[in-house]
This record gives sequence, structure tokens and C-alpha cells, in this order.
Amino acid sequence: MAEDDETGVAAEAELKKGFETLEVVQPDPSVPVHYIYLNRPAQRNALTPAFFTELPRALALLDRLPSARAIVLAARGPHFCAGIDLSTLAATSAPRSADRAAASELLRRRILALQATISAVERCRKPVVAAIHGACIGGGLDLVAACDIRCCDEGAFFAVKEVDLALAADLGSLQRLPSIVGYGNAADMALTGRGVPAAEAKAMGLVTRVFPSRAAMEEGVAALARGLAEKSTVAMMGTKAVMLRSRDLTVDQGLEYVATWNSAMLMSRDLEEAVRAQLEKRKPNFSRL
Amino acid sequence: MAEDDETGVAAEAELKKGFETLEVVQPDPSVPVHYIYLNRPAQRNALTPAFFTELPRALALLDRLPSARAIVLAARGPHFCAGIDLSTLAATSAPRSADRAAASELLRRRILALQATISAVERCRKPVVAAIHGACIGGGLDLVAACDIRCCDEGAFFAVKEVDLALAADLGSLQRLPSIVGYGNAADMALTGRGVPAAEAKAMGLVTRVFPSRAAMEEGVAALARGLAEKSTVAMMGTKAVMLRSRDLTVDQGLEYVATWNSAMLMSRDLEEAVRAQLEKRKPNFSRL
Amino acid sequence: MAEDDETGVAAEAELKKGFETLEVVQPDPSVPVHYIYLNRPAQRNALTPAFFTELPRALALLDRLPSARAIVLAARGPHFCAGIDLSTLAATSAPRSADRAAASELLRRRILALQATISAVERCRKPVVAAIHGACIGGGLDLVAACDIRCCDEGAFFAVKEVDLALAADLGSLQRLPSIVGYGNAADMALTGRGVPAAEAKAMGLVTRVFPSRAAMEEGVAALARGLAEKSTVAMMGTKAVMLRSRDLTVDQGLEYVATWNSAMLMSRDLEEAVRAQLEKRKPNFSRL
Amino acid sequence: MAEDDETGVAAEAELKKGFETLEVVQPDPSVPVHYIYLNRPAQRNALTPAFFTELPRALALLDRLPSARAIVLAARGPHFCAGIDLSTLAATSAPRSADRAAASELLRRRILALQATISAVERCRKPVVAAIHGACIGGGLDLVAACDIRCCDEGAFFAVKEVDLALAADLGSLQRLPSIVGYGNAADMALTGRGVPAAEAKAMGLVTRVFPSRAAMEEGVAALARGLAEKSTVAMMGTKAVMLRSRDLTVDQGLEYVATWNSAMLMSRDLEEAVRAQLEKRKPNFSRL
Amino acid sequence: MAEDDETGVAAEAELKKGFETLEVVQPDPSVPVHYIYLNRPAQRNALTPAFFTELPRALALLDRLPSARAIVLAARGPHFCAGIDLSTLAATSAPRSADRAAASELLRRRILALQATISAVERCRKPVVAAIHGACIGGGLDLVAACDIRCCDEGAFFAVKEVDLALAADLGSLQRLPSIVGYGNAADMALTGRGVPAAEAKAMGLVTRVFPSRAAMEEGVAALARGLAEKSTVAMMGTKAVMLRSRDLTVDQGLEYVATWNSAMLMSRDLEEAVRAQLEKRKPNFSRL
Amino acid sequence: MAEDDETGVAAEAELKKGFETLEVVQPDPSVPVHYIYLNRPAQRNALTPAFFTELPRALALLDRLPSARAIVLAARGPHFCAGIDLSTLAATSAPRSADRAAASELLRRRILALQATISAVERCRKPVVAAIHGACIGGGLDLVAACDIRCCDEGAFFAVKEVDLALAADLGSLQRLPSIVGYGNAADMALTGRGVPAAEAKAMGLVTRVFPSRAAMEEGVAALARGLAEKSTVAMMGTKAVMLRSRDLTVDQGLEYVATWNSAMLMSRDLEEAVRAQLEKRKPNFSRL
Repeated sequence: MAEDDETGVAAEAELKKGFETLEVVQPDPSVPVHYIYLNRPAQRNALTPAFFTELPRALALLDRLPSARAIVLAARGPHFCAGIDLSTLAATSAPRSADRAAASELLRRRILALQATISAVERCRKPVVAAIHGACIGGGLDLVAACDIRCCDEGAFFAVKEVDLALAADLGSLQRLPSIVGYGNAADMALTGRGVPAAEAKAMGLVTRVFPSRAAMEEGVAALARGLAEKSTVAMMGTKAVMLRSRDLTVDQGLEYVATWNSAMLMSRDLEEAVRAQLEKRKPNFSRL
Repeated sequence: MAEDDETGVAAEAELKKGFETLEVVQPDPSVPVHYIYLNRPAQRNALTPAFFTELPRALALLDRLPSARAIVLAARGPHFCAGIDLSTLAATSAPRSADRAAASELLRRRILALQATISAVERCRKPVVAAIHGACIGGGLDLVAACDIRCCDEGAFFAVKEVDLALAADLGSLQRLPSIVGYGNAADMALTGRGVPAAEAKAMGLVTRVFPSRAAMEEGVAALARGLAEKSTVAMMGTKAVMLRSRDLTVDQGLEYVATWNSAMLMSRDLEEAVRAQLEKRKPNFSRL
Repeated sequence: MAEDDETGVAAEAELKKGFETLEVVQPDPSVPVHYIYLNRPAQRNALTPAFFTELPRALALLDRLPSARAIVLAARGPHFCAGIDLSTLAATSAPRSADRAAASELLRRRILALQATISAVERCRKPVVAAIHGACIGGGLDLVAACDIRCCDEGAFFAVKEVDLALAADLGSLQRLPSIVGYGNAADMALTGRGVPAAEAKAMGLVTRVFPSRAAMEEGVAALARGLAEKSTVAMMGTKAVMLRSRDLTVDQGLEYVATWNSAMLMSRDLEEAVRAQLEKRKPNFSRL
Repeated sequence: MAEDDETGVAAEAELKKGFETLEVVQPDPSVPVHYIYLNRPAQRNALTPAFFTELPRALALLDRLPSARAIVLAARGPHFCAGIDLSTLAATSAPRSADRAAASELLRRRILALQATISAVERCRKPVVAAIHGACIGGGLDLVAACDIRCCDEGAFFAVKEVDLALAADLGSLQRLPSIVGYGNAADMALTGRGVPAAEAKAMGLVTRVFPSRAAMEEGVAALARGLAEKSTVAMMGTKAVMLRSRDLTVDQGLEYVATWNSAMLMSRDLEEAVRAQLEKRKPNFSRL
Repeated sequence: MAEDDETGVAAEAELKKGFETLEVVQPDPSVPVHYIYLNRPAQRNALTPAFFTELPRALALLDRLPSARAIVLAARGPHFCAGIDLSTLAATSAPRSADRAAASELLRRRILALQATISAVERCRKPVVAAIHGACIGGGLDLVAACDIRCCDEGAFFAVKEVDLALAADLGSLQRLPSIVGYGNAADMALTGRGVPAAEAKAMGLVTRVFPSRAAMEEGVAALARGLAEKSTVAMMGTKAVMLRSRDLTVDQGLEYVATWNSAMLMSRDLEEAVRAQLEKRKPNFSRL
Repeated sequence: MAEDDETGVAAEAELKKGFETLEVVQPDPSVPVHYIYLNRPAQRNALTPAFFTELPRALALLDRLPSARAIVLAARGPHFCAGIDLSTLAATSAPRSADRAAASELLRRRILALQATISAVERCRKPVVAAIHGACIGGGLDLVAACDIRCCDEGAFFAVKEVDLALAADLGSLQRLPSIVGYGNAADMALTGRGVPAAEAKAMGLVTRVFPSRAAMEEGVAALARGLAEKSTVAMMGTKAVMLRSRDLTVDQGLEYVATWNSAMLMSRDLEEAVRAQLEKRKPNFSRL
């Protein structure tokens, strides 16, 4: 239970050591927003075993950091992410075991472990904004599908690339895309593997904001994340958690869940402050959690 | 079981007494469409405890009224609804009990009671069309998200305002919006609290019709509601009920459910009349239920 | 278990005998794509009892045919489908039994049998592309809602016609449309029965591609289907099956399901070939299943 | 929201007026246990329309009464309950409407209304103990299946009688019995309608306590209810609510739900008192909610 | 839709042709009960491919036969069923395909086909009573777990044998046993593969009746089946169908389902007759469906 | 992904270092069964923060150890487990934060973390047998409810103690007990907190085996575990995983899941060996995974 009384000092120290496949930075110390950059630009940020270990760790550390009230997931280099690294895929999908059942069992565990990395974005209590440019395909699409808000520049494009590798996508796109873009759009993308450009991605709800250039996107996302960071952390975490949970419940169960949630979380200082601020027509000043 | 043999006389009498926060009218006695107006324009129709009691009552009465075959939910004044009244919120969210658990339990029941008001729109067997202009935010958005069809004029805008009050929306938006606008759009709205203008609302499916002016909307909605009122009540009630129920079932369960439903409801006079009318190429004349 | 070692010879022979309401053809022997045409143009392809028997049979045969790696569902004549045949509907919905319960029970079984025909599109392991022109209403919409990809030309329009026959649609639209076009759009269509033109159908995700003319659509769909047929069958079948199954599971259950699926299906020759082909920058050559 | 600040005065007054089919008493003013007796012994407590209105009202009043911390449901006369009154059934199941669909729709609403009476036992926040003697059949079994704890004397017997009235039980036994007695025992009872004596009822988990005589049962149930009434109300209500809710969730969802519940309800004075009492090895003294 | 107006003549004719692995008889023409006997006594009724084809066919025929109002599933020879035939298992589980994915896909379809045979017992609308003696293991246990009522003699014993064949049982025991005997008993049986004797099977709910000898069981089961056959078919079919459907729904969904079901099936002649017979204190005379 | 190619050497080394609250031993090096003992006998094995950290670690290590094919969970001293340590509970349930929402959020995370420890028993792929003597109450009952097989001696007794601490049990009993002992027995235990002796525990399915003495239990459990360890690991892991997963699926979904599972896991050497051994009437010799 050491994580409980965390002031974030240890987390900050660990973050400072850096990562092999990621760069984690807080661009402006006065703004509680942290950036995670996919950082293997030469390989178009293809996802390697190291990435699958590092991303959940980075998110867990930021989750504990009071100075991180919103997180941006972006990428270095000309492309957001080219998907899973081909040699990683080849290695993962060919367990050495001679026994078929043993090989299958090992393979199944490997896939579940990779999925856990992607789902770590959802487990992180704080909002995660994806800022996408260039190619966002295969595992890259699986990754952003788990983010809370997706933005891109006009040159971005998206594809469920797995089908061209002769496999069914297994890192989450087949599960998350249908509720984001509708079942029909998701099936079209998943079966054809075709590239979806930014404008179409916006029209189908895959991204909610398209910016005219990469620079504009960086500015826009920074403003968006700053806005999220200014809001009450209680409200941010509650909204994210309740939405994710309700996704898998009936509407009635979801209503009952949020009633229970708010019975615990509603009587906060932040709510009092928000109401007071609205009545006094000023900006509220929320506590850091 | 008194409600069974209801001819609607008692309901009509009770409706005549009027409401504090609502106005309920049937504009044209020859057209079986009733309007419920949010009617506290000076307060931008902010939702008070009286509203939460009156709306379900009004809907229950109209549900029994043979002269109400379709219902329009609209608003007086410049805005549809500014959300929950701030002082109501403050009072609701701060139970006086000194014991934390007792306070939580009371708060939970209060939220469940407020939710029941919103869900009363779905419990009403007849189709409810929301006609929205101006601001439709917070509790107002929760309310229209439970309606069957949403229309607006070009000046309307929508926002999940709760996040700015430092709380997770608990009146249904987090549960109902994702299936209406997609998970991505819903998360963007819920986390940022940003205002969504009419055109974007249409593009994401939040409204299905945008009219160029408030007057045009009123006319358009009147025509739409009249059209619904002309259809077979059996078909209207069945379609609404089956869709709502299927929302929480697997596709196979939903198919099996509608088969069972129609095994009870299909051999109606309305169906015979509809088939006959189609063959005779004339308008059908459906029975009032 | 005779179907196991099927080389498709028997299936091919049976297909050659032809159908009363369908035409099944493979336009180009060198391209493993088969077309199923609704083929009662004079009756605007209204759905009769024969159709409900023949479609599942045709799909089951193509499912076993190695030369069918993708299927196109299209229609002869000026309209895709005018919905269920009126006299079929009248006969189906009026069982002769004098006992109310017996009549209901029989009616329920009849509806379940009709639904099974529509769901046969989903049970078919291979991707089914709907190519739609003209009217696609009532049962026709139920049918295409079960297809994997929907394309249309500019003149196509779509309607949930059942409501005008005084009944709740019971062949799947009320269950499948909400996840395709969003709950709000689906409710609007189902309650009003209004015709949705091609452009709006595209905007709401009902179709994913609109072509400027019927000829253009035919060409476009042929190219699309050829593309699907060139992909790995293992990947096609896995993607379709996993998406359909995940639709009815929570996200976590869906992830766990695809991990189990791929533990069985991943170590294929197709995957090896796909990786090799990517590294060698050539087109892969997948095995026929 | 008047019910919130209820001290129970109004509820007590209404209870004093009495009921037609029930007797509600608090045998010992110093013990916060209330009894609801089915009170039409001459008719073997057959369930009439009045009963279906009165039971939910009685439960709602006791729910608000601080002096009711546990509720016993028992019966006057030689039998607990002979099931739904035959003339009520005949009247309910034969709506006068000539239109088949209208009749079905009315019938469906009537059944839903009857079910709501039974489910009111679960909606009551306080534990309800059924004390059963003699026949407990049909609607009587539906009723006790919704109670939290079931006790009986040795002469009691249980039967799903509906099957002998040529109908499928529709007041909850088919839904609740399988999780109480196992699917096999439930199916046997439901299909055969056979009488299950007390000892077998205990063996299959339908009752948890069998007493050698009616007097012994009365004493035993009184002691059991007193024990429940001495416990923390927070714990009682939480345990009942969480179990009922978890019944319809996956285990993981149920765990997450109780964690959220307890995050609201755990920091109570009762918990502090309970821990202190355990350490001081004395009986705790819980607050009344 | 030929099955609709079935008088059972064709079914009877087909039944007369007989089966390779089954014997289907109606012992007493005046009693509408049919028996299906597993009929390969020399092989202890081990399940072969022929059985998996014949059982669903036999059930489908009896389903249509008015003279079959209850079905008994029993076995010839000293044992009920020794499970799946070993050579069938070996052949099934080793597809010849050299490609791993192709082999898996084929294997998966084979298992689904075998499961469909077992589930045919549930798809049959009429009650199926299992009469078990001797060994009932592996596939035999899967089979009886799908029956509605299970009886045995004192010498019977039950085992999930699959675990000793180095595989997870895949014909339904792992899915159906937990709700019949509780999760703990099911896990114990499934993991240890131990034999459960009749008395323990009764105690855990696996069977509901144990008879002192095989002859006594035959007599007892005949009486039980006759009793089922005397009841209203509407009630039998409704009870079976509603229980099976409710097993996979929440309690609230199940209640709503049975209300819809009964709105279609309640106004039957059988109900009128049942009520009249009860009032006249005579045996009801139900119509044959 | 280091865990993949684990030979268990590192795990064994870490196990050797020992635990503060547990003792982990392999009594007989020739038998691949490991024991985890709760090892704070003086405190009646009350559960402390250290336990909640150590148990999942111990299980994860044994999960990787080829020499652990079955696991026994037992306890040192006169009692199995007295539940959560009172001071741990007091500390856990009173977060220091002054803000109510922050305190709730922290508390919720703490409970989720404690639950994860209990659920680690289910996450462990190998069968876990609980060997219980003396008191098994509160958290102790939560713990054994997650085990696969539960055995006890005659002196054992079980209680949901949480209700006497004025809280709803939140470590899994309310979720897992109903499917083990039936909803009625679970509610009785949870609401009354009464002690259930060994014989009643057996009758309701809470334990599957009761031994006349602690020594007899130790012997019996050793034999049981040895039996499990001799079986095919593929079958053990598959059976456990499929049962746990199917618990949260509909029967049809569960069937489809196990078909997919076995399509991956069936073509094992163990199956070939099992079939061969059966035909040769000898003990099979399974591979270690």
C-alpha cells in the first residue's frame, strides 16, 4: 500500500531516469501537463518489447504524480506509429515449444500481456489525449483507440493494418473501434485495412479534432490539455472511470453505478469551490489530488 | 390497477390543474400531439426539485391520454435548459447528517430519484421528440439524451457542463451519449465540457435534424410529431420499447425478444388495416389505443 | 461431419442447379469472388418464403467453396429490395389456429425462422459486401444491416418501413442499426420510417462508400471484393468472427477472447508468408482454406 | 425529495390506518422489528389486487421508519399463501379489448405491475425475513423467493403451482429460484408443480432454517430478526444492496461495485464503534439511520 | 415454413425408419410420452459421429409430434453412457491439415457442431427427462446436464471424465454444471474427474430423484413423464423456454421477458380450462398443440 | 516478456528467501505439489498489509514453477484465518485526507488493491486447494471462496464476519458465495454473520469434502493434490480457466469460448498420450509444462 501516501517524489525520480522507447516531459513546470512521446523516430515508432514494458510503467508513474493532471501521448519523427515491430511479431507468434498446446498457451499469455500495455491507458486515472500525425496504423491504432480524446493534423491517416499481416487484430481495435466509429465503419477498416485520412476519421468520430498542420495541432492539443488540467481532478477521474465502467453495463446499471460513485465523491471541496466560483463569476481554484 | 381501464378523463382533469415548472398543451385539438414546455424562462429553465417531481407526473398522465399519440418536449424563453439549478445542486449534495455513511446513503438515494425523472422519458410508451434551441447544457443534455428524437435550430448548442461543477455527470449523459454520438465524441464532450454547436451535433448524431431558425424548427417538429401521431400506436410503442430493451441485450437476445414481442402484438387490427391500405393505395386509419 | 473434408465439389454442383429468387455467379473464374443477386426484379425483390429458404442455403454453399473468398450481395432490377412481400407478411402474421396461445407460439417460431435467414449472413465465415442501389427498405434494410460492408450508389435510399405496416421491425434492424448509425439516428429512422438518401446514409455510417453511379458502384465493389479475396482467409474469417463475438462482450471479455482465438490461429503459414512478403516488399501469396 | 428528512412520523401515522389484506405490527416497542402478516386467513391468503397495492406501500413505509431495522413477512391462518386469487387471475388474464395487440399490451403492463409488487421486497433497503408455515405455493413462492432469508416450520411445503393453471409462472420464481436452489431443482419444481416439503426445501437451499413447530419457528424467527436489528443498519443495507446488484454483474464488476460502495459507506461511526467494541470485548452500540 | 402446419405424419414416418445409435419408442399409445434410448449397449453407449447426427434429428421429429408431450432420455445396457467414443475423439481432435491455423479452424467448427447436438435437448420445446443408471461420464454427463429433469437409480454414478483425457470438457458441463450443482461442486468434479455416486448427486442437485433400483426408476420416470404429458403444453413449453432464456438475463430482464411472453401466451383455452377445472374440482382437459 | 522462457530457476530462488506471513514448502520433492501456509498462528493468521503483498507474489512464483502442478492453501496454528487484522482495517478505512472525495478515492483504490490479492488465487493458472480447520471467517472466507476446491476437518466453521464490523464484505464473498452455496444460503450467512459448521458447509456446497480430523484432512488433501498433479497440466489449466471465464458469460458464449480454447489447446501430446494410455490400459505419463 506504499502507493497511497505517495507525494510523487519517488515517481518523479524514476521518471528522470528516462526510457528507451519513450520520452516523458513536462514542457512547462507551471502547467500540470505531461507528455509521453513515442521516441524511436527512425523506426517510425514501431512497437518493440521494450515499449510494451515501458508505457505502462510511465503511465503508472504519472498517475501518482500530482504535477500531472492531464497526459498527452504524442510521437517524435514523421509518423505517429507504424504498428508492432515486424521482428517482435515474428518472435512473439512463434513459441519455440514443440508441443502444440504448450505453444498455444504461451502465445495466449503473450498476447494478454501485450493487451495489458494498451489497456494501461484506460487504467490510468487521468485523461490521456492522443496527438497524432502521419501514419497511425496497426498497434498504433490499437493504442490511440484506448486514449480518451484523439486529435490529429491534416496529414494523419489511420489503418487496421493487422489484416495485411494475415491475422486478426488482437490489441483492442476490434473491441474499441465499433463504439467509437460505429460497427460499420469499424468492420470496413478492419476487413480492408485501408488507410483512413484525417477528414474521414473526423467524420466517423475516430478523432474529434483535426488541425490544419502539425504545429497547429501541437498548439491546439497543448491548450486542450491545459484546459483539462485546470479542471477538478475529482471530476476528471470520475468522468473517465464512470464512462469506462458504464461502457460494459446496461444503462440502468450504469446509472446506479454513477449514483454510488457520486455518493462517495460528491461532497468534495472542489464542488463547493465550483459552485461558489460560479456564483461569484470567477474561475474556480481546485485542489490537487 | 385503476390505470387499466383509463379513458383518460382523470388524467385530463389533472393536467388541467397545471404545473409550476412546466406547461402542458395540446395546440390543435384535432391533432393528437401534446407539448411539454420547460417553463421557467427567467431562470433559463434551470432544473429545480419541483421539475423533478412534475416531469414524470406529466409524462405518466400523457401516457394514459388517448389524445396524446406523440409528445414534444420544448422550452419557453431564450434557452432550452441551463442545467440543474445551482442552489438545488448545493442542497442536494450536502446532506446534513454528521455521519459520513448516512450522508452518503442519503445522497445516493437522492441521485437515484433525480435519475428516475430523466428515465421517465424512456418509461413513457409514446415517442418523445425534443425541440431544442439556445443552451442545452448539463441536466438539460441529460434530459434530451433520454428522448427518442432530437431536433434543434441553428443557434442551439450542447454541453456536458457537470465537469465544470467538479463532478461526474450523474443524470444519464455518461451512459446514454456514447451510444448516440460514439464513445470518442462523448468522452471529448464529457471531459472538456465544451459547447457543441448545432452543425457538429448533427454530424455526430446528437440531433438528427437542424432547422435554420426557431420558427422553422417549431414548424418542422410539429410536422414530424403529427407524422408520428398518424402512425399505428401499436407500432410506435413496440418500436420504442423493443429498441430500448435491445440496447441492453446481445443481438441474439434482442432478436429473440422482438420475436416474442411480436408474437403478442402482431395480430392487430392495425396491421390488417395497414396491409389493406397499402394494397388499396390509401392512407391507413389506425385505431387509438 | 461430412462438411469437414469438403473440397467444394458437392457445393458447386448444388449451386449450379440455381435458385428461384436468387442468382449466384462467379463473374471471373480467376477471381475468387461470388455474387448473390436478389433476382425478382419485377417484384422489386420483395422477400418471399422461397427467399428465406434459399439465401441461407446459398451462403452455406459458398461458405464451403474454396473459390469463394469474398461474397457480394447485390440485386437485379431498379431496386435493391422493397422489403418483405405483403402477402407473405399477411400469411405469416395470421396463423389459422383458433387458440390464442397456439397462434402466438406458431407466430413466434415463424419470426425466429425468418430472423435466422438474415443472421445467416453473419454465420457465413467469409466477408459479405452489400452493393445497394434504388430502394433498400424494410426487410431489405434488415438484410444489409447484417452484412459486413455496405456500399451504395447515389440514388439509393434506406428506410425502416415496418412502422408503416403497423408493426415493430423484427428482422434485426432494431438490434443492429444502433451500433452502426448510433442510437439517435436509428430511433429516428425506426419511428418515422423516413427515407434516408445515400449521402446521409454515408454521414451516419450506414454505408461506408457512396459511388456516383450504379456502374461506378459495380466497378468499385468488384475492386473492393477482389481486394478482400486477395487477403489471408485466416485473417478475414478471424476478423469477422472476433468482431461479431466482441459486439456482445465487455471490452475485457473481447480482449481475452481474441487472445484465445489468436493462440489457435496465429501460427499459420499465412502469417509467415505475410511477414516474409513485407520484408521482401512483395505481394503475399496466401493459401486457400 | 420530502422523503429525505423523514423522521418516520408520517409513515407511522399512515401505518396506523391499517390495511385490508395485511396486518403490520411491531410486537415489542423496545425491539426495532416490524411484522407484515398476510391477513386473509379464510382465503388462505390468496393474493388479490388489494394485496398487490398494499404490500409495496407497507414496505415503503417501513423502509422510512427508524423503528424498523428488520422486517418479518409472515401469515395469519393455517397456510402462508395459496397463490394468486383465481378470480383475480381470470380477470387479469382476460382484457376486454377486442383488438389482440391492445389486449396483449394491456396484459403485459398488468403483469409488470404485479411483478413490481414482488420486487418491492428487494427494493426495501432493510432485511426481510420470511416465516413460512403450511402451503406456500404459486404467487406465495414468488413472494418469498424475493425475501432475504427464508425460514419455515416442519409442516410447510412449497410448490410452483402456476404450471397447473396452464401458464408459465410470471412473478419471479423462474428468475429467482435457480440461483437459490440450483437450476435442476428449480426446473423440476417448475415443470412438475410438485409440493416440496420442508426438509427437502432445506436440503436444496430454498429455506435456510426449519423449525420443529410453528411456535418454535415464531420464536426462532423473532430471535433471528432481533439479531439483524441489533446490527449496524449501514452494514445491513449495504450487504443487501451489494448482493442484489452483484447477482446481475460479473464477479469483477461486482468487486468493483462493492469497492465503490464502500468508498462511500465505510468511514461510518458504526465501523469505528464496531472496532472499538471488539477491542473492548463489548457489544457495539450502533446508530439508527 | 413447411414445419408450421405439420400434423406430425411425416415426422412419424421418418421416426419409423429407425436410427443406428438410438431407439425411439412410444411404449403406450394412450400416453403421449416418447422414449429415446441410447442403443449401443455393447459399447456402453459411447458417443459416435452417428449419434451426434441422430439425436438432434430425433428431437426435432418428436418436437413436431403431437403424440409426444414429454420425452424420456434413457439407455440400453448396463451403463447410461461411457462418454465420447475414443476413436471418434482421436479422429476429431487431429485434423489432417498441415497448416496450424487451418487445423484449428476446422477443429473449432467440429467442436461447435458436437455442442449443437447437446444443445438440441434445450432447443426441443418439450420437457426432456433423463433416466440414468450405471456410468454417466464425460459426454454422457454433458448430455444429461442439458436435460430438464434428471433421475437415476442408486447404482448410477457421474464423472467429468474429460480431464483424464487431458482436455477441458467442451460439450457443456463446464457451462451448465455450476448453475445445477454450485460452482464449488462443479469445480471439484471437473478438476478431479472423480465419480460422484447417486446419493451425493442428489445432495448437490445433479439429480432431483434417486430410485432404489433400475426397475423402480423406470416406473418412477414413467409416472413423472406421464404427469408432465398431462399438463398444458402451453405451460410446459413456456416454463422451459422462459427458464432457459432467463438463465442468461438479469433478474429484471428476465421478469420483463416473461411478462412479454405471457402477454402473448396467457389468453389460452388451457388457462380458461384450468381455472374452470379448479373451480369445479376436476382434472383439466388440455388441448394438444 | 522475461517470464516466458522461465525455467523456474529465478522463481525458486526467490521462494527460498521466504515470507513474513506465509510459509511456502514442497513437502515431497518427488511430488509436484506446493503448500502455502498462512503463518501467523499467534494472531490466528489475521490478514495484514504484508499478507496482501506476499500472497499474490507467492502465487505468481508457483505459477511459473514446473515443480508446482497443484497448490494447497493451508494454515499454521489452531485456526485457518480470523479475517482481516483489526488495526489494518482501522488504518485502511480511515484515509487521512481532509477532503471527503479525496479520502473516498483513496479508500476505493485501497479496497481494489486488497481485492486483487484475493483474485490472485483465480489468476494463478494451477488448481488451488484450500485445506481449512478451525475458524475461517471474514477475509479468510473471502480467500477460500476464490480457491478451486475447498476441504475442511470436522471442527472447521465459516462466517461472513464483516457484518459485525458494521461493513459490507468487500473482498469477494458477496460476489462468489452465491454461485457456490446458492443465493439464499449466501444471504443468510452475509446478513447474520453466523458461524456455519463443517457439516452444514458440506451440505450447502461451501466445502466438497469434510474429514473427521485435522490429520485425516492433511492426508486426504495431500492425496487429492497429488491426484491433480498427476493429471495433464494442459487439462488442469484449461478446465480452471474455462470455468472461471464461463461464470461470467451466457451458456452459448461459454460454449463458443471453450470451442475456441480447445481449437488451440486440443492437439497436444498429452491428449495423444491419454488416449494411448487408455487403450493400453495404463497410467498416462503427461509432459510438464
